Amino acid sequence: MNIQFADRMNNLQASEIRELLKLAERPEIISFAGGLPAPELFPVEAMKVVGVKVLEEQGMQALQYSATEGYGPLREKIAARMAAIGVNATADNVLITSGSQQGLDFAGKVFLNEGDIVITERPSYLGAIMAFKAYSPEFVDIAMDDDGMDMAELERVLTTRDRVKMIYVIPDFQNPTGKTWSVERRKQLVELANRFDLPIVEDNPYGELRFEGQRPPAVKSFDTQGRVLFLGTFSKTFCPGMRLGWTLGEGELLNKFVLVKQGADLQTSSLGQRELNQFMEDYDLDEHIATIREVYRSRRDVMLTAMETYFPKVEGLTFTYPNGGLFTWVELPAHMNARELFKRALEKEVAFVPGGSFYPNGGYENTLRLNYSNMPEEKIKEGIKRLGEAIQEMM
Amino acid sequence: MNIQFADRMNNLQASEIRELLKLAERPEIISFAGGLPAPELFPVEAMKVVGVKVLEEQGMQALQYSATEGYGPLREKIAARMAAIGVNATADNVLITSGSQQGLDFAGKVFLNEGDIVITERPSYLGAIMAFKAYSPEFVDIAMDDDGMDMAELERVLTTRDRVKMIYVIPDFQNPTGKTWSVERRKQLVELANRFDLPIVEDNPYGELRFEGQRPPAVKSFDTQGRVLFLGTFSKTFCPGMRLGWTLGEGELLNKFVLVKQGADLQTSSLGQRELNQFMEDYDLDEHIATIREVYRSRRDVMLTAMETYFPKVEGLTFTYPNGGLFTWVELPAHMNARELFKRALEKEVAFVPGGSFYPNGGYENTLRLNYSNMPEEKIKEGIKRLGEAIQEMM
Repeated sequence: MNIQFADRMNNLQASEIRELLKLAERPEIISFAGGLPAPELFPVEAMKVVGVKVLEEQGMQALQYSATEGYGPLREKIAARMAAIGVNATADNVLITSGSQQGLDFAGKVFLNEGDIVITERPSYLGAIMAFKAYSPEFVDIAMDDDGMDMAELERVLTTRDRVKMIYVIPDFQNPTGKTWSVERRKQLVELANRFDLPIVEDNPYGELRFEGQRPPAVKSFDTQGRVLFLGTFSKTFCPGMRLGWTLGEGELLNKFVLVKQGADLQTSSLGQRELNQFMEDYDLDEHIATIREVYRSRRDVMLTAMETYFPKVEGLTFTYPNGGLFTWVELPAHMNARELFKRALEKEVAFVPGGSFYPNGGYENTLRLNYSNMPEEKIKEGIKRLGEAIQEMM
Repeated sequence: MNIQFADRMNNLQASEIRELLKLAERPEIISFAGGLPAPELFPVEAMKVVGVKVLEEQGMQALQYSATEGYGPLREKIAARMAAIGVNATADNVLITSGSQQGLDFAGKVFLNEGDIVITERPSYLGAIMAFKAYSPEFVDIAMDDDGMDMAELERVLTTRDRVKMIYVIPDFQNPTGKTWSVERRKQLVELANRFDLPIVEDNPYGELRFEGQRPPAVKSFDTQGRVLFLGTFSKTFCPGMRLGWTLGEGELLNKFVLVKQGADLQTSSLGQRELNQFMEDYDLDEHIATIREVYRSRRDVMLTAMETYFPKVEGLTFTYPNGGLFTWVELPAHMNARELFKRALEKEVAFVPGGSFYPNGGYENTLRLNYSNMPEEKIKEGIKRLGEAIQEMM
């Protein structure tokens, strides 16, 4: 048997990382690898109440097919919440998706022909890279500093390359680096997109998990022409297992996403959408998020303090101090390889994600991502200590 | 603003049908249009119990990220159920998808380059046509008789065309025609696929809803080489709003679907999967399906009897007698147009789906699909009477 797959499948290899991470699933492992929320904070009790209520009051509708765009009252609530980051929207601007991951797949499907260019940050989110790769684009990744994407480099690329079709950014507590774009850069990005007539996909799973300071306005808030698609999710603020996210946009752009959603899976779970909506009616989601923030802030502090304490003090070893989100990002001295470090750390029963996979065009194997949301503080401290030893042994 | 979409978006126009059907959503309309299950049969009370139990016993896992492939115990149960149609499978052969619609999208993504040929029945399922169109294939549709696809025509196409990449069939109570393939044709299909080394996508949402006779073995049951992908769903046997389906296959083919699922939406709802699994543990799904069958059988009888009574007896007006599933299929005399009939019927507050959209290459506007699962018997009778009058008026 020699069945021919579509050419795009050559871009989608089973990730080496995924295989590595299977090794990290043993319960004795201290894992900083996944991007898992803390499950002990999931609103399990509230969900019981909410689930029964939805079935009691609207059981038939909750189990029946429903509109591709999503459940009206939930779309309304999402639109209203966007005001906090300067975005005026109505329910009509919101398409409910199965996590924001689905919005990433749709962005690739809507915008990318084979060989088209997608602009990303360098590094960028692994899952977005994987979603876009299915559409066989060329990735042009742009350097980042602590204020976001390098705008001069972006402008140079936009000026010199003519197949750019889409700009993809994660401006708040970026995955993997934990960095946040300045307000100025956000404005500049929209200006450049206006000038070169390009869509922006703003992926924002972590913005609500801010530990310090003010939440900046969304890139979308500076969009006067309807060219920014904002991807949001309840995976980090509510729970990921229900796969509830959204794409917010306008007019023809959002319509294209709706069309694609129809063919992809018709709609997101009617029951799940109504349960979340009921939760938002009967409970205080912001209060719930405040609790998550408090726990993660403390875990971040423990991790960073431990890193300061236990990581070798050597030239070229740096890490980020995120003000929110789930991750810190480590750069090792250039000669070191984080995949090698992974193996050594695993012997010490500690896991993380080697950073190379976050670079769409490869390289940068001296980097790694650490997650602090999923482990209790004692384990974070112990895990970082062991990781420090593993690094030391490789020096 | 003149944002460039991917070329594939030219294939995906907002369907005229969808717009027409919005007109049919008023509650006073007797609708034979959608493919909606009867919501009064949804296991609402059981779902309350099951939902609380899952959250009580496995709340954190049910709300957390989980494996792309799906929840193990549910995959096991699905594999075991496949024995009823001659398929030996284990949990490893099952990928949980967000409805079988998602499996259709994945089939397109895994197999189709632009311009590749996908073979379908003529007519075929609208949602599959839409899903495949996103990958810009050429559709070659093969004539059907009452025993399934015309094998001589299929062989001729496979012999003369060299870009055929995939064969898509709905062998049980086909949507839209309600026809079922004979066992002999199923065997012949697999033989041809073996000879021409092609994958088969067997879409089977309705097989369990058989009113008379024995359920035939799946096309998959004759597959000795692992080239048939079987798409199943709980949308018609449990409830569609939870978006729970599966793709069953082997080895590299199934692996490709898993890879694509990762990029598309990571996984299907952990909670939804566990609720369904719990339902299957604590309740008798087969008994539940027997109830659905009983109700739909009776509605089919009422609809067909009414059609015999109220439709004009003229040359060229025919309809199918399905032994299961949700639909009967009407062919009007060749000079009549079902879109025109739709408008006239709507004035009488009756709706259906004009059949042209089920032909990937257009034409056949004298056809229409009638659904009998979603309306009570009195309304079916009244609706068919009015539809008969509308047809009569157009003669």
